[in-house]
Amino acid sequence: MSSSHFLANTINTYYEEHGNGKSYPLILIHPIGGNVLIWHHEISLLLRSGFRVIAYEIRGHYRTNMGKAGAYTMQDLVTDLRHLLKHLNIKRSSIIGHSIGGIIASMYAAQHPGEVDAIVMINSSPKKFEEKDLEKHFKTRKVAITKGIKALAEHKLRSFDEARDLFKDKKHSDFFRKVFTKTSVNGFVAATIALYTIPENVVDKLQTSNCKVFAIVGSDDDVFMRLLKETKEEMPRLKLSILDGSDHWVIIEKPDEMYDILMGFLGKMRPRGR
Amino acid sequence: MSSSHFLANTINTYYEEHGNGKSYPLILIHPIGGNVLIWHHEISLLLRSGFRVIAYEIRGHYRTNMGKAGAYTMQDLVTDLRHLLKHLNIKRSSIIGHSIGGIIASMYAAQHPGEVDAIVMINSSPKKFEEKDLEKHFKTRKVAITKGIKALAEHKLRSFDEARDLFKDKKHSDFFRKVFTKTSVNGFVAATIALYTIPENVVDKLQTSNCKVFAIVGSDDDVFMRLLKETKEEMPRLKLSILDGSDHWVIIEKPDEMYDILMGFLGKMRPRGR
Repeated sequence: MSSSHFLANTINTYYEEHGNGKSYPLILIHPIGGNVLIWHHEISLLLRSGFRVIAYEIRGHYRTNMGKAGAYTMQDLVTDLRHLLKHLNIKRSSIIGHSIGGIIASMYAAQHPGEVDAIVMINSSPKKFEEKDLEKHFKTRKVAITKGIKALAEHKLRSFDEARDLFKDKKHSDFFRKVFTKTSVNGFVAATIALYTIPENVVDKLQTSNCKVFAIVGSDDDVFMRLLKETKEEMPRLKLSILDGSDHWVIIEKPDEMYDILMGFLGKMRPRGR
Repeated sequence: MSSSHFLANTINTYYEEHGNGKSYPLILIHPIGGNVLIWHHEISLLLRSGFRVIAYEIRGHYRTNMGKAGAYTMQDLVTDLRHLLKHLNIKRSSIIGHSIGGIIASMYAAQHPGEVDAIVMINSSPKKFEEKDLEKHFKTRKVAITKGIKALAEHKLRSFDEARDLFKDKKHSDFFRKVFTKTSVNGFVAATIALYTIPENVVDKLQTSNCKVFAIVGSDDDVFMRLLKETKEEMPRLKLSILDGSDHWVIIEKPDEMYDILMGFLGKMRPRGR
């Protein structure tokens, strides 16, 4: 594994590269409040299968700075990924993204149809949110701004909608705290507001690309269950795997089940260099 | 005139109060890239008519800070206005807002129906933008972030869509430069992204209020001409005044014509204390 910083337009994107540089590259993109740590267990599993794995951090999350402005759009995050893949000279890859990470993956694949073989959206979708879906963040932003990121982590652990399962297992909630509290208040606030800026045409553009489109969703994650069902209606070729009884932070709760599903989706992309 | 700062939740809102404190209050809210300076001439005209005039600056614009986060929603700006009016103990007023200022006015009136007698939206509307309406700001944000606010002022003066008329008169373009360059890059970026967060139901809520709704638009301001025509269809009681041959920065170009229209709208609200 090597890790380094890469400078583009004042955004100093932190990324880690794991595995054989000649193997097939998988790009991992974390959710809001996440960072590379969240993929720890998943990366070790993917490495055993011989993939090259690149995980990076989005603006304002742990080791990646915010740049000169404190607000950004989804398109800015897509542009940051563009710069990273150019920097690494990666011309074909598959992209696995959790929540906002899956939105970035879908927008990137829509805009660069020849370069992405497959995307896997984990508790995520390529569709715009409805207004009510984003309303809970009026509260989360207020907690972050007035009480700080640690208080927000505790708030999230107490809010039933996101953390039913995390709650059950102290090991999981402690890991959630460790990851989440690395996020800057600025980064959290900017990312939740960026969710308003998802373009309307992502599904249409994905339709006309050859990119394979996969999704994994916890059955208890109501918002993404709804958005992915709508996506499936518009794009029947979407392969959707529902994890029964799971919730938004499925990557922390069930990394092994996640790996099995990922291999079902991506296993045929035989890693070179094995 | 008195001026002061008022602290609310780390937002230190700058405002100016002009005229007799017992007169009927008009609240003035500037556009993105504007500040209290932009109302200079208008304020002196309104004072002669005996109104109490309160003008303030929104987050990240000139003398009002950004607070702890670098991004905000439209609702945050409405909340800031709420705090200001509570601080000033103003229970009834009329609100005049230019562009983003008019959006704040319409949201505030929709949320506090008993407190606002009238709103005047100047080159503004209570409706969500279409995606394409906001696309020009991908460029403006890039100029602001990479080249700074002075370069952005020059970019705006060169961009035909906003500044046909400013262009003709050096006095106007110099005044535009003086006002606009007081804006922080952070404030400009955050405000343009906040435009994505306008709620869907503002017109519906205004419909059921007793608030009078007025609008003034330059005939060459294509986006707000379209949005206000749509608003007028949904809400026939909207009184719309079109300034022929005018553009987005009509308050700089035509403060006297603006005053005449404002008095046509608001003149019947006889200022007390005269």
